[in-house]
Amino acid sequence: MTAKPVTPASIDHRDPKRLDNATTMKIATNHLQSPVAPLSTLLHPLDVSEARLMETGFWGTRSRINASNTLPHCLGWLERAGWLPNFDLAAQGRLPVGRKGREFADSEVYKLLEAYCWENANHPSAELENVIVEMTRRISAAQENDGYLNTQFGRPGQHGRYSDLEWGHELYNYGHLLQAAVARLRSHGEDALVAVARRVANHICETFGEDGIQSVCGHPEIELGLLEFARATGNDRYRHQAQLFIDRRGHGHLADIEWGRSYFQDDVPVREATVLRGHAVRALYLAAAVVDLAVDTDDKNLLSIMETQWENTVASRTYITGGMGSHHQDEAFGEDYELPSDRAYCESCAGVASVMFSWRLLLATGNSRYADLIERTMFNIVATASADDGRSFFYSNTLHRRSPGEPTDPTIQSKRADSSQRSAWFDVACCPNNIARTLASLGSYLATRDGSGIQIHQYADAELEAVLASGNRVKVGMTTRYPDDGSVFFTVLETPTEPWTIAFRIPKWAGSARISVHGKTFESVPGYAQVTKSFTVGDQIHVMLPIEPRAVDGNPRIDAVRGAIALEAGPLVYCLESASLPNGIHVDDFVAETLIIPAPNEDATLRVQGHLDANLRTSWPYGTSPQTASGKPLAVDLIPYHAWGNRGPVSMRIWLRTH
Amino acid sequence: MTAKPVTPASIDHRDPKRLDNATTMKIATNHLQSPVAPLSTLLHPLDVSEARLMETGFWGTRSRINASNTLPHCLGWLERAGWLPNFDLAAQGRLPVGRKGREFADSEVYKLLEAYCWENANHPSAELENVIVEMTRRISAAQENDGYLNTQFGRPGQHGRYSDLEWGHELYNYGHLLQAAVARLRSHGEDALVAVARRVANHICETFGEDGIQSVCGHPEIELGLLEFARATGNDRYRHQAQLFIDRRGHGHLADIEWGRSYFQDDVPVREATVLRGHAVRALYLAAAVVDLAVDTDDKNLLSIMETQWENTVASRTYITGGMGSHHQDEAFGEDYELPSDRAYCESCAGVASVMFSWRLLLATGNSRYADLIERTMFNIVATASADDGRSFFYSNTLHRRSPGEPTDPTIQSKRADSSQRSAWFDVACCPNNIARTLASLGSYLATRDGSGIQIHQYADAELEAVLASGNRVKVGMTTRYPDDGSVFFTVLETPTEPWTIAFRIPKWAGSARISVHGKTFESVPGYAQVTKSFTVGDQIHVMLPIEPRAVDGNPRIDAVRGAIALEAGPLVYCLESASLPNGIHVDDFVAETLIIPAPNEDATLRVQGHLDANLRTSWPYGTSPQTASGKPLAVDLIPYHAWGNRGPVSMRIWLRTH
Repeated sequence: MTAKPVTPASIDHRDPKRLDNATTMKIATNHLQSPVAPLSTLLHPLDVSEARLMETGFWGTRSRINASNTLPHCLGWLERAGWLPNFDLAAQGRLPVGRKGREFADSEVYKLLEAYCWENANHPSAELENVIVEMTRRISAAQENDGYLNTQFGRPGQHGRYSDLEWGHELYNYGHLLQAAVARLRSHGEDALVAVARRVANHICETFGEDGIQSVCGHPEIELGLLEFARATGNDRYRHQAQLFIDRRGHGHLADIEWGRSYFQDDVPVREATVLRGHAVRALYLAAAVVDLAVDTDDKNLLSIMETQWENTVASRTYITGGMGSHHQDEAFGEDYELPSDRAYCESCAGVASVMFSWRLLLATGNSRYADLIERTMFNIVATASADDGRSFFYSNTLHRRSPGEPTDPTIQSKRADSSQRSAWFDVACCPNNIARTLASLGSYLATRDGSGIQIHQYADAELEAVLASGNRVKVGMTTRYPDDGSVFFTVLETPTEPWTIAFRIPKWAGSARISVHGKTFESVPGYAQVTKSFTVGDQIHVMLPIEPRAVDGNPRIDAVRGAIALEAGPLVYCLESASLPNGIHVDDFVAETLIIPAPNEDATLRVQGHLDANLRTSWPYGTSPQTASGKPLAVDLIPYHAWGNRGPVSMRIWLRTH
Repeated sequence: MTAKPVTPASIDHRDPKRLDNATTMKIATNHLQSPVAPLSTLLHPLDVSEARLMETGFWGTRSRINASNTLPHCLGWLERAGWLPNFDLAAQGRLPVGRKGREFADSEVYKLLEAYCWENANHPSAELENVIVEMTRRISAAQENDGYLNTQFGRPGQHGRYSDLEWGHELYNYGHLLQAAVARLRSHGEDALVAVARRVANHICETFGEDGIQSVCGHPEIELGLLEFARATGNDRYRHQAQLFIDRRGHGHLADIEWGRSYFQDDVPVREATVLRGHAVRALYLAAAVVDLAVDTDDKNLLSIMETQWENTVASRTYITGGMGSHHQDEAFGEDYELPSDRAYCESCAGVASVMFSWRLLLATGNSRYADLIERTMFNIVATASADDGRSFFYSNTLHRRSPGEPTDPTIQSKRADSSQRSAWFDVACCPNNIARTLASLGSYLATRDGSGIQIHQYADAELEAVLASGNRVKVGMTTRYPDDGSVFFTVLETPTEPWTIAFRIPKWAGSARISVHGKTFESVPGYAQVTKSFTVGDQIHVMLPIEPRAVDGNPRIDAVRGAIALEAGPLVYCLESASLPNGIHVDDFVAETLIIPAPNEDATLRVQGHLDANLRTSWPYGTSPQTASGKPLAVDLIPYHAWGNRGPVSMRIWLRTH
């Protein structure tokens, strides 16, 4: 029995082709492959049936609400906004009249369909199945004979197919369709949706292949879709097409725009880039796809390039929340250390995409830093983006809001980034559906297996099982009040007599953690703490993570947060909301002095002692006047950032001034 | 003889109608009215012939280069870009085929024409006159019978007239045409250009009058044009139309957009607003026009509202450079204290517009704070925007540039805000022409008169004259090396025997100044120091402003500059350029400790002692690790901000870290 950083020992190859040509196969529910199933990685995702999130705890609750509220909420809006009916109009030959939504409206339908497929894998029901079948029927009816499928292009009165690769999003839409089809194939098997996707994928290969249109889509995503569809179907042609797209990008195939070709990563070939840049979601989807390609083609150099891009992006272009994207203008990464709190964009979709990128690198390398960032991003972006009831959403996740703004109207489509309140729907509604598909496949991110055992990456109420290299099955239960409490309890539910290893991620923020097994306690440094043992059913392991509040500052190159601290506890970032302050006091006027450990109340607040700034200049704001006097002392309560915006319009800040 | 803050004593009413109905009148060159000639204000602008900027010194040099280089440079680009030829195509009935440029391309022609008119007032020449006549001929030929004049709308194959008030810029274009016509009327008299403008103005009144289209232009400017054209022609109808536009704005006549109606100030009626907001140039042009309206209609309440808007904007939405506009996305003001250095937009045109707004308030109130901001904006935005040779320009004036970027190509149109280098021309080229017309009318901003004497607002080599209430003429010469030197020398060149007053602006930044007259020296606090005396020709006055370097910090509510200082000397803001640093040292890694008073060299640099940051985190940039070690000591030289970007691509920052 040891407790040390993990060096996973064996690589377990799967057979990726077992689902191909299985047109009539119904996959047994205990073999539901996860959303990402690489051909060969150090760590292997558990099948959906092997990683079962319970309905309790931080994530279990959110997953349940996602199923009960968010999915039907989004479906209702897709109908009401006309984006699903666009397919009916297409099938009836009535377009372009009456088409609703932006050029990427089709993708929202696909993303939600993917969410339904994963939810149907988690908790199969006739109701979910009916939604999937019916959505598929309507989509399928709009497909043209040669496989082309899009409601915005190609008809009389519409612009021609692929006439606007910069902004048309046709291939982007396909990418999401292919991801939906992967979800369907892995959770159900071949059906009409998979058939639609296969025709689309073949059409793409014919149109954009080596002798086809020599360009790429303005919004990366097709690469991800093709690569996973290749894995799910075992058809290498799709991987080859994805590789063509990836290799073409960066050579200026797309037109230049005011913000530069970096916007769609067409400025520099991916192998020459050292950091993510341009539109954040575009950059992250592309990066995730490139990891898939590197892994499936065993291209270690390319994998290493993507690790470097991740490293540099995390060191200098990532917010404390895990959020990415510093510009509103182009929804883009800024330069190194350009991380303004007030103009933080941190699109919810970029959070989702960041998790996708990190997850693939985690599988490929087993390095806990990727799981650390996933945790941070899940708790502070994904959990923030969606309201507790799953019926309203942040598009942008700012770190600082100076004015409360107006309440949102739950009956209308909102602008993207204009309120301290979550919105029911947006003119550009990528985020709600992206959150929906992420929460519907959340179990997949909890743990992995290698031949020797299970690696626990995220802490939540769950049951996890895996097959060892020996063929024997192991199974553990995990229960926790995390992140309100740092204790996580594991119970061995199924085990062979042979020894095997369970590894626990000790986050970097923890500094160290304690692990108790059979009354013996070990300290572990950050990384993976391994417990290798001949277990018996009923064995208990207790992992204790120190979630005491801590004050952190920023790299002083980040001008936006110099002279300020942020409070964290466990994986949570905290914030000060105006709703916690006496009337008339602005969040920007509080100067923090001392962090007070929370009173033993249950509401997860942190109390900070400080004072009000008494030196505010009211005219020309630059000068040499001394800033001496301390204002009135004040103690304020901070709440977890993910919980902000739930008390009506407020101002808010994460970074508290220290002078 | 006194030296005390001024309280101007008398109001001198002009006859604004003297230029109207003067269709054949050629105005004598010693009665050239200035660009802004209110009906009634506390202080009165000098006529162009009364305020003569010499060709020497900081501004004289720039004015000369503007005439010799910038005007022909811009004219060449207007031809080459096709924006002037658009009028020829219109006259030949060949549009819409071949039209070039954006919807506001016409306005660039008008703005440059205005610049030529003012330059022709400064230094009349047959060459300038020919350009004006020829441009007028081409513009005039494109005007339609009912007065409508626009190359982008209203023809078969174009969108209908006024079909896109939000973005079409038709009225905006007219505003600039009217300002050009004002320049022509005041520097020359009635001619074909004035006739074109009169037909346009009448067409506007007929189309948008009380019973006309009940809306406004998406870009304010027509209001300014109509109000000054009303003054210049004595036709109250134009003022009434401007008032209609001003009163309509803020009532949601324009469509909502993603950034909100505040973008075009159509969110709140001007009388209810307390601060400038939305697109900065739009907001400032509107504000300037509203002051004109308040003054000409003697609406003291409205004037007071505009003073409040100025006050609040300057206190919380203005950069240390005087620059305005915190967002790239919508070229807009941010919220209070949202003043990021790196994403500062500070459009050059917003600097010009800010000077226009402040100048009108200065005339109306005599408060030196308006002249202080004009000085700051002129030295740090207007002087920065234009290269020393007057042939390249900044569109945006950032306060912090992290990466040098690429050299600009002087043969191509550049993007708006993408380089550390000035560009020859832009796709949107409002700034070069705006700088050109400002430098061509620079003398107008130097001084004013009231019945009792002359008020000096800006220091430059010049000759200034005015007529007293008594009808007697006074004249003074001003010579100075300002801002390299704080000494300004005045010589009385013409004086009656009666006593009169010369007032000198003592800038707020100066703290105090000394004034010597006949060997006696007085101290004066900021404001206007008055010297009242029976002067004799040859009398000398010496004003000594303390231009010693000073370190300033920012209101701590400005997150972007907390823990940082800026260096100023006189009206100049200084900056650190990477070209001043050893190779491999980044401007962001310098930590300032001590300001060293400059060595007695002549190159206007300031030396600062500090050290390199030795604590840069290279991975996750947030943490609790102590920042203790001081790095290698380093002394760096700062240069005036207006001089940056002249040593090839560089990184740069104004605000130096202090920890």
